[in-house]
Amino acid sequence: MSEFHLIRRYLTGVGAARDDVLVDVGDDCALLRVPAGQALAVGIDTLVAGVHFLPDTDPESLGWKALAVNLSDLAAVGAEPAWATMALTLPEADAAWLAALARGFGALAAAQAVRLVGGDVTRGPLTITVQAHGFVPDGRALRRNGARPGDIIGVSGTIGDAGLALRRLLAGEPVDEALRRRLERPTPRVALGERLRDVATSAIDLSDGLLADLGHVLEASGCGARVELARLPLADQVAAVVAPHDDWMLPLASGDDYELCFTLPRAAAAQLPALAAAAGCPLTIIGEIESGDGLRCLRTDGSLWRGHGGGYDHFAAT
Amino acid sequence: MSEFHLIRRYLTGVGAARDDVLVDVGDDCALLRVPAGQALAVGIDTLVAGVHFLPDTDPESLGWKALAVNLSDLAAVGAEPAWATMALTLPEADAAWLAALARGFGALAAAQAVRLVGGDVTRGPLTITVQAHGFVPDGRALRRNGARPGDIIGVSGTIGDAGLALRRLLAGEPVDEALRRRLERPTPRVALGERLRDVATSAIDLSDGLLADLGHVLEASGCGARVELARLPLADQVAAVVAPHDDWMLPLASGDDYELCFTLPRAAAAQLPALAAAAGCPLTIIGEIESGDGLRCLRTDGSLWRGHGGGYDHFAAT
Repeated sequence: MSEFHLIRRYLTGVGAARDDVLVDVGDDCALLRVPAGQALAVGIDTLVAGVHFLPDTDPESLGWKALAVNLSDLAAVGAEPAWATMALTLPEADAAWLAALARGFGALAAAQAVRLVGGDVTRGPLTITVQAHGFVPDGRALRRNGARPGDIIGVSGTIGDAGLALRRLLAGEPVDEALRRRLERPTPRVALGERLRDVATSAIDLSDGLLADLGHVLEASGCGARVELARLPLADQVAAVVAPHDDWMLPLASGDDYELCFTLPRAAAAQLPALAAAAGCPLTIIGEIESGDGLRCLRTDGSLWRGHGGGYDHFAAT
Repeated sequence: MSEFHLIRRYLTGVGAARDDVLVDVGDDCALLRVPAGQALAVGIDTLVAGVHFLPDTDPESLGWKALAVNLSDLAAVGAEPAWATMALTLPEADAAWLAALARGFGALAAAQAVRLVGGDVTRGPLTITVQAHGFVPDGRALRRNGARPGDIIGVSGTIGDAGLALRRLLAGEPVDEALRRRLERPTPRVALGERLRDVATSAIDLSDGLLADLGHVLEASGCGARVELARLPLADQVAAVVAPHDDWMLPLASGDDYELCFTLPRAAAAQLPALAAAAGCPLTIIGEIESGDGLRCLRTDGSLWRGHGGGYDHFAAT
């Protein structure tokens, strides 16, 4: 089967039908219409076999995740998703594998009203690159650089779940289905991101771990922060790993959560319950932006917790 | 050096400064403005080491080519280039290599007024994925499906040069600098594509070879075609390979030329010299669109040349 037919068969008609797609997959370029008064938001990310996912991950989950991590970037700037493109490098032309990948990708795309508008399939070591495209009203995008001293810091969902699932899979330990889905089928917080445009001063998605990603916000905003460890939103299984040794690395430094971390003026804290209800996910205040620099993690008694810093980093990690 | 710093240092400030880039590399997404009355054209392509380029290709040429092949897709729809994103997977964090890649990419980007607005760097086997973004006035894009019987078929530049350079490099034979540049630093025919919007009925860029790519046009348009071999625009070195054995596979079926192949009404043929002068590249009429289907390659005496069909295909090629 030729590359051309591979692309056409499995990567055509994936996701939601959209009126703003003028030319779909199959020509040299897709042709698209951005609404007046909206900026185009784009983000591109690659998943590499053996680096970002276990080589035996099922292709349907991979397809989902490849789109999810990119929709998460759109959520972080408060964009409404519209289109995606996918560049797929795979060792062999396996029709069943490609069909499953497209099915997983398409399930999330349909749920988020996203159309796959362009694709490239090449032979080589397995990598999946996706670019997501969305819209943000002019001048309304969330940025990393808007946090101010006194702002409170919020996080959606729970953190450390994906890291725990990965740790257990690597150790050959059992992983329950709900935990495994947190690693393999993350939920991009798109509805939350759009609503945060009205209230947040900064936002980022948690791909590399809270310490690393909140660190990017602090660096871009020229601030420091205090995080209260007891406030971190933890699933029971994660809390059970943290408690025995006072070891917070799992929720602080493991990646792949794809929750949003955001800052907002303290006066807006009262809006969080309504925001959580509207966005369909829990929101938790975990700390406060401070003047100066650096990120301090405090125990309940106010003492400083000193762990090994940094989230997952592709070139610094062992 | 961390991924974050790698990206920021080498993939920031690459290419032309543009007023329509609202947020550049470094946040979760780039934010961009598409002009009113213009459609957004996007195309994505991956280059894989050992498949699309020789592993010892210098990184500066790779950076150039990764952008060039994508600008060529924009040219094929008649789009004006604006922005690019790059997802780079590389085995190790080599600062000099990355700087050279960015230099080559940036040289072509600056020449074509393109800004690199987003990047992702991951660890893994060497692959480079680039998405190019451009503008086409509403309803004016060139497509593959507009060729009609009686249209003449034109090609820019010369064809088979990149294939000859690759053949010689693989055989360890000497390759002169000009020929090597045709493989490693192709010139996307952007100015031509924009001008063809006024006259062409269809267009495609030659990435997989004339037979394969013109074949896509014929399939999309529901037509056949006649190509006169003696008219093919060949550099002297390519003609010297073809002549001894009447073997036209090099200009017909080798890829990587990144010239444009287009069709236009016969009445518009008189405009080609002025078009060639304005676009800065030779244009040659090589044949005619016919009713029916299939692609016939004819010798000067009218006899049918029967070679092995098909251009380079990643999964069908040996």
